[in-house]
Amino acid sequence: MQVPEANFMESPKKLRIALDAMGGDYAPEHEVAGAIEALRASHEQFEIVLVGDEQAIRHQLTLQKAEHLSFTVAHASQVITMSDSPTAALKQKKDSSLAVGMRLHKEGNVDACVSAGNTGAVLSAATLILGRIKNVSRPTIGTFIPAEYGSCLLLDAGANVDCRAQHLYEFAVMGSIYVQLLKKKERPSIALLNVGEEKSKGTEAVLEAYNLLAASKYNFMGNVEGNDILKSKADVVVCDGFVGNIILKFGESVPLFLKSRLKKFSERGVLNKLAVGMALWPLKVSLQDMDPNEEGGVPVLGVNGVAIIGHGSSTIKGIKNMILRAAEVAQGQVNRQIETALAREGS
Amino acid sequence: MQVPEANFMESPKKLRIALDAMGGDYAPEHEVAGAIEALRASHEQFEIVLVGDEQAIRHQLTLQKAEHLSFTVAHASQVITMSDSPTAALKQKKDSSLAVGMRLHKEGNVDACVSAGNTGAVLSAATLILGRIKNVSRPTIGTFIPAEYGSCLLLDAGANVDCRAQHLYEFAVMGSIYVQLLKKKERPSIALLNVGEEKSKGTEAVLEAYNLLAASKYNFMGNVEGNDILKSKADVVVCDGFVGNIILKFGESVPLFLKSRLKKFSERGVLNKLAVGMALWPLKVSLQDMDPNEEGGVPVLGVNGVAIIGHGSSTIKGIKNMILRAAEVAQGQVNRQIETALAREGS
Repeated sequence: MQVPEANFMESPKKLRIALDAMGGDYAPEHEVAGAIEALRASHEQFEIVLVGDEQAIRHQLTLQKAEHLSFTVAHASQVITMSDSPTAALKQKKDSSLAVGMRLHKEGNVDACVSAGNTGAVLSAATLILGRIKNVSRPTIGTFIPAEYGSCLLLDAGANVDCRAQHLYEFAVMGSIYVQLLKKKERPSIALLNVGEEKSKGTEAVLEAYNLLAASKYNFMGNVEGNDILKSKADVVVCDGFVGNIILKFGESVPLFLKSRLKKFSERGVLNKLAVGMALWPLKVSLQDMDPNEEGGVPVLGVNGVAIIGHGSSTIKGIKNMILRAAEVAQGQVNRQIETALAREGS
Repeated sequence: MQVPEANFMESPKKLRIALDAMGGDYAPEHEVAGAIEALRASHEQFEIVLVGDEQAIRHQLTLQKAEHLSFTVAHASQVITMSDSPTAALKQKKDSSLAVGMRLHKEGNVDACVSAGNTGAVLSAATLILGRIKNVSRPTIGTFIPAEYGSCLLLDAGANVDCRAQHLYEFAVMGSIYVQLLKKKERPSIALLNVGEEKSKGTEAVLEAYNLLAASKYNFMGNVEGNDILKSKADVVVCDGFVGNIILKFGESVPLFLKSRLKKFSERGVLNKLAVGMALWPLKVSLQDMDPNEEGGVPVLGVNGVAIIGHGSSTIKGIKNMILRAAEVAQGQVNRQIETALAREGS
């Protein structure tokens, strides 16, 4: 593997983040622009390594007048597309921007690897290249859902479809550590997503996970239902990736549904149009945090390193926030804390 | 069992509907008021049998000046509460309003039984007292979710938590027949709710259900994702009751979440308050069909009869619509059609 132009020996204490510059739907344009904004927002407190087709990246750096900024470019000749099968693509495209970025991290040349590319591929690359933390059965991803007061972390958000009780238990532990670190919250409350609050409700896996969590040292508050998620009832809401993925996508579609309904209403007359025009301001402000670009990206929890997955359709702001999130997670050493927590139990 | 005041020999062709007058959170007041409105809306084309504490019901009929309307009262000395365990309550409270109403139906004295009481108990009563239709493994309930164009039926809505492929297949068949009848739609499109559109996605049960549906004569369009529900991608969306219940409750909480966010916005200043005031009209009209009282109630599909379950917190309008829905389902003979459809396959 060639890593031209990269000199990883400079300023060893500055955090280094590899960005898959070819990952998202609007790559490399949004990626380069987001990287510029992240550098500016952090006053260049970390370095960004742009990974991907060098010519395309340098062209963007020129277009976006960023040649004076201290970017490093690591060339990668291949790209994993959104339609590629994650595991097959990782095997076949050894020189993809994603694999090169993740290997830079594995080899210690960067402190994090972020990508807005194929979610399954980023997840697989993180798991296969960085490896699982000891005592973690399955790495997971979680997403913050806006709630009445603040937000709650829903996990698993789609990484693991069929789950056993032990998996759910580990998701809860990992989510709790992540929220504690990121939101500076002591002993975040954990709940299992279920069809009723009673202990006797739910699938077999959920029933058993209830017992595991109730016997643990974590701040387990029991079951919550679908209508409790937006009510801020718990800081961490645990479910399998099948339920989590469906809830998240359903939630993401709500603002668009609302928009479409309001459009139809506004077409009924001048007065309607005026009322909708007035409604847009409060709605936009009130639902601002439902835009996934606000969060930027979610870390893969349970792997030996910092891998952040962004939305395929990330805006420039989304890419910027994804990079800033990577810096936060790397500094907080989330995964080392997960290792310590689960090692103690495993012993 | 005593059924005082009931004379079931009159006008044999008029549809008769038993209403559990003690079921909902505001029983018997909302129940009696809803029954009056249903009779008025239908120009008294059917009869309503009010089941429950006779004294309380007659008191409400007097209070609501409905003594001149042709209600029949069937006395029941017990009530199943919202906190009762469904199966235990059915065993212990043999003379509950729900059980009495369901038995009136089983014995052919009424054509349908509706209740806004304990959902699990109504479901159990329908299954145990009316019995399953031949070849139906598990009765199911579905709910119409408002979508961009019209609505889609999501089922199972919470009756069956752990499901095998055959169960999902039967839910699809029952849902298709119900939508065809109620929405007058030929060959409604059916989809499996999944974490991706590809055939290879999902849990083991969903993967197998995909094959069963693809090989069937029904209008199966494949998988849809969480963000497709509100987009009207399919007429019938099939999932297990764990996922269905969580999605439905999550969806129901969205308007309240919106309200809470707008309230917070309006508290920030006079101009904010004004803008929110203007926003309420378009929002209220646009989201009107998200009120579960519009649908009124959902039928238990797959039992030998017509049992309709309403929301515990049903308004008077909710009770009215639940009764009207019962009349529709009874006239359409949904369950007889399900029996024919599944019998043909079973043979």
